[in-house]
Amino acid sequence: MSLIRRLAEIEGFDLSTEVAIVGLGGAGACAAIEARRAGREVMLFERSSGGGGSTMLSACEMYLGGSGGTAIHKALGIEDTSENFRAYLMECFGDNCDPDRIDMFVDGAAAHFDWMEANGVPYNRRLFDGRDVVAMTGDSLQYSGNERVYPFCEVAKPVPRAHLPADADHNGGQVLMGALIKQVHRLGTDVRYDARATALIQDDDGRVRGLVVRMDNRDILVEATRGVILCAGGFVMNERMTAQHIPAYAKVGLRHGNPGDMGDGILMGVAAGGHAINMGEAFICVASYPPAELTYGIFVNNKGQRFVAEDSYIGRIGAAILKQDKAEAYMFIDNRNFARPEYMNGTEIVAVGETVEEVERESPLPPGMLQHTVAYYNEHAAKGEDPLFRKAPRWLQPFDTAPYALISYHLRDISPHIFTLGGLDVLPTGEVVTPNTRRPIPGLYAAGRTVAGIPRTSAGYASGMSVADVTFFGRAAGRQAAAAEPVASEGVLARM
Amino acid sequence: MSLIRRLAEIEGFDLSTEVAIVGLGGAGACAAIEARRAGREVMLFERSSGGGGSTMLSACEMYLGGSGGTAIHKALGIEDTSENFRAYLMECFGDNCDPDRIDMFVDGAAAHFDWMEANGVPYNRRLFDGRDVVAMTGDSLQYSGNERVYPFCEVAKPVPRAHLPADADHNGGQVLMGALIKQVHRLGTDVRYDARATALIQDDDGRVRGLVVRMDNRDILVEATRGVILCAGGFVMNERMTAQHIPAYAKVGLRHGNPGDMGDGILMGVAAGGHAINMGEAFICVASYPPAELTYGIFVNNKGQRFVAEDSYIGRIGAAILKQDKAEAYMFIDNRNFARPEYMNGTEIVAVGETVEEVERESPLPPGMLQHTVAYYNEHAAKGEDPLFRKAPRWLQPFDTAPYALISYHLRDISPHIFTLGGLDVLPTGEVVTPNTRRPIPGLYAAGRTVAGIPRTSAGYASGMSVADVTFFGRAAGRQAAAAEPVASEGVLARM
Repeated sequence: MSLIRRLAEIEGFDLSTEVAIVGLGGAGACAAIEARRAGREVMLFERSSGGGGSTMLSACEMYLGGSGGTAIHKALGIEDTSENFRAYLMECFGDNCDPDRIDMFVDGAAAHFDWMEANGVPYNRRLFDGRDVVAMTGDSLQYSGNERVYPFCEVAKPVPRAHLPADADHNGGQVLMGALIKQVHRLGTDVRYDARATALIQDDDGRVRGLVVRMDNRDILVEATRGVILCAGGFVMNERMTAQHIPAYAKVGLRHGNPGDMGDGILMGVAAGGHAINMGEAFICVASYPPAELTYGIFVNNKGQRFVAEDSYIGRIGAAILKQDKAEAYMFIDNRNFARPEYMNGTEIVAVGETVEEVERESPLPPGMLQHTVAYYNEHAAKGEDPLFRKAPRWLQPFDTAPYALISYHLRDISPHIFTLGGLDVLPTGEVVTPNTRRPIPGLYAAGRTVAGIPRTSAGYASGMSVADVTFFGRAAGRQAAAAEPVASEGVLARM
Repeated sequence: MSLIRRLAEIEGFDLSTEVAIVGLGGAGACAAIEARRAGREVMLFERSSGGGGSTMLSACEMYLGGSGGTAIHKALGIEDTSENFRAYLMECFGDNCDPDRIDMFVDGAAAHFDWMEANGVPYNRRLFDGRDVVAMTGDSLQYSGNERVYPFCEVAKPVPRAHLPADADHNGGQVLMGALIKQVHRLGTDVRYDARATALIQDDDGRVRGLVVRMDNRDILVEATRGVILCAGGFVMNERMTAQHIPAYAKVGLRHGNPGDMGDGILMGVAAGGHAINMGEAFICVASYPPAELTYGIFVNNKGQRFVAEDSYIGRIGAAILKQDKAEAYMFIDNRNFARPEYMNGTEIVAVGETVEEVERESPLPPGMLQHTVAYYNEHAAKGEDPLFRKAPRWLQPFDTAPYALISYHLRDISPHIFTLGGLDVLPTGEVVTPNTRRPIPGLYAAGRTVAGIPRTSAGYASGMSVADVTFFGRAAGRQAAAAEPVASEGVLARM
């Protein structure tokens, strides 16, 4: 089945609108709201029977800062300059990013929070200062990444930037998407559910003129006079594509997203002349906390060597384990802080002993290595130092309370969550661009995990970066398509 | 500039042939030879002023085995069963490969050697048994990868599989490509130099019908009634694409290839409906040997930890260093084996001392780590063991001859050679396929570094794998296109 239909080859359109959007997740909802507020006709096609996408499945933190701080920051007396926010993001992704995208995001992120509140997403003005993947306290602000972790903490002043819907626990996605979808409908968007976009319609000049949507077992041809916005998610649910693009992740990971994350939007965009980039990168998380006290433990690889600052974010720990031989890792911990991780299954107690030597002997680790690693760690931790990885002093505690335990964290056993970070190359405006010259393809826009956004590696990821990126740049794409010069409508056939 | 021209939009063709080939490197030459021998008209378009491609720039080892052994293996009494060869390749690339491609290659590799000899490439029947990147002895067989390295040596019986043109030293590429290009011309291929393919011509059914070639400042439209074969190299010379697809490699690497490796073939294939895969992987080599005695040294990262078996192949060492913090590494060695690597610039002596402790104190390594690493290594090396990485006993020697030295191998300083390993997804026959369903695009074939071939990661690479892959599957693509049902010719305009 072709992903492109030529305008010249179709008899005519069944439906016509100004802006057509594919997908009602975070990006598509925001694009629709902006395009409707700009006064445009908007049709939105969602392949599921309801809206929400992968955004709705998430806790819906949004990673926001800069401009001195968001409204929550300001209420709490926390300052976050744009320079500070930019410095943090560049340390996360500077080796592989679109600086223009980061600049636009940094400049507009604080106002994006106001926009989200104005659209009815409830937030309070309370900070959760603990170490957890998602605050379970109802608070609306938390540290959610590597802000307090070396080397990030030396490059930028640590600021908590994850903004959570109030009192939502893990259900922030339902709160946020509930509010946005309400706006989408209230503003008069023509939303069609059970409607899967299967192809783009392109004219002989390369302009995207509409799309083919499968509805009620028929191919419906939809004209979009100002543009099509692809917000169709990533490709983590596509087994062929994940095996080809992220084989190491796909081999061990638990696919995280909604069933529609099949790569449709990426493939349609490429077929129209776009360029898929960063396709080999994915988020992979090892939720070694909560409980936070597990941070006192140390990770070692199957040589008995440490390899990561254990106070890192779950995505950075996942990326670090993936680099180790056979993606194998162990946590060593003493009885004072022993616990099982709340969010992980599949960890196993490999060895327990009254001494490190006894633990090592019971383990598959090479003789002597764990003993040295623990002795070295203890010696320096007692002085509040970690010369190897600079774990923060607050998490340094010599191991001194027998019994000691070694717990396996082999990726193949613990099913770390994964999702994709590759997609279409776009300008910050959402315009899909060609390879090399990065020339916009007229009439084609994209946002959400269909594009290569700000987060481009698990090692620099923080909770809330995806939702912030997809909603912020979903809005931008909606505005851009709404402002595009329209082509004259071809009119609509009588058959609908 | 569009990468696709619609057949319906052109006035007519300027030239017509049965098989059109883009690029006269190893893949294109082999494709042309096979298509000509199958009796087809063949036109070949090369963007440079002469043939050879990146294959000609290489030492032109070919990595071959299986079927009991090649003619050289048999003359030397070396056995290499197909099972053994397959087991080795699966250990190299099994996590990320096309098993059908490996099967076809394993079954045909020994006969491919005979084919190459029959085409005039000279080989002798002598084995070089030393450790060098390229044998400088004139011998035609050598170990060129990780055959004798753990875990490869446990999975497959170590067999030397790099086949080198006789007495060629580093000039094997000129010998092999010289012979092949002579055949290409002798067989009557219509070769056009200074002729850059810029677009494919596709009909409304999606069949590739020809290509646009820039010659003498004109766009020449070339019909290919049986098919177009893209053998246009990889994309390592394309700065935009390398920054987008292999940023970590591009940041430190020295681009290895010919100036035409601009990704043209990959981008044209994608524009025609193909799928680019493995785009984030590249070869990266750290030629820490020769001289071979440097293998007695140990590599440590900037934590003072070992991280690789030092008897590994240069590509595996490069991949291992790239994974370390800041891509920094050091070699520790004693005076008995001290030397400077012959093929690397940019290494620096960071510290020298009469004791390990003195070296460590002069170095930027964290206190105590190097001392432990060396003591641990020495203790086990004295027993002929390496419990961490299982370096082979022949390379284990306790460090005992002062002075000792620490030499930096930071990737940013040593400019490791890189080339790309991503490209079009193809069937082993060279048929370019669509995403997901992997349906062949009629009339479109590809081989060489324009496709994702057998070698898909530097960690499993061995010298000779690329030349073997591009020539073997170049032939397959030539045969496949030659055997394709032709479309009726549209005829040629009078203007040429």
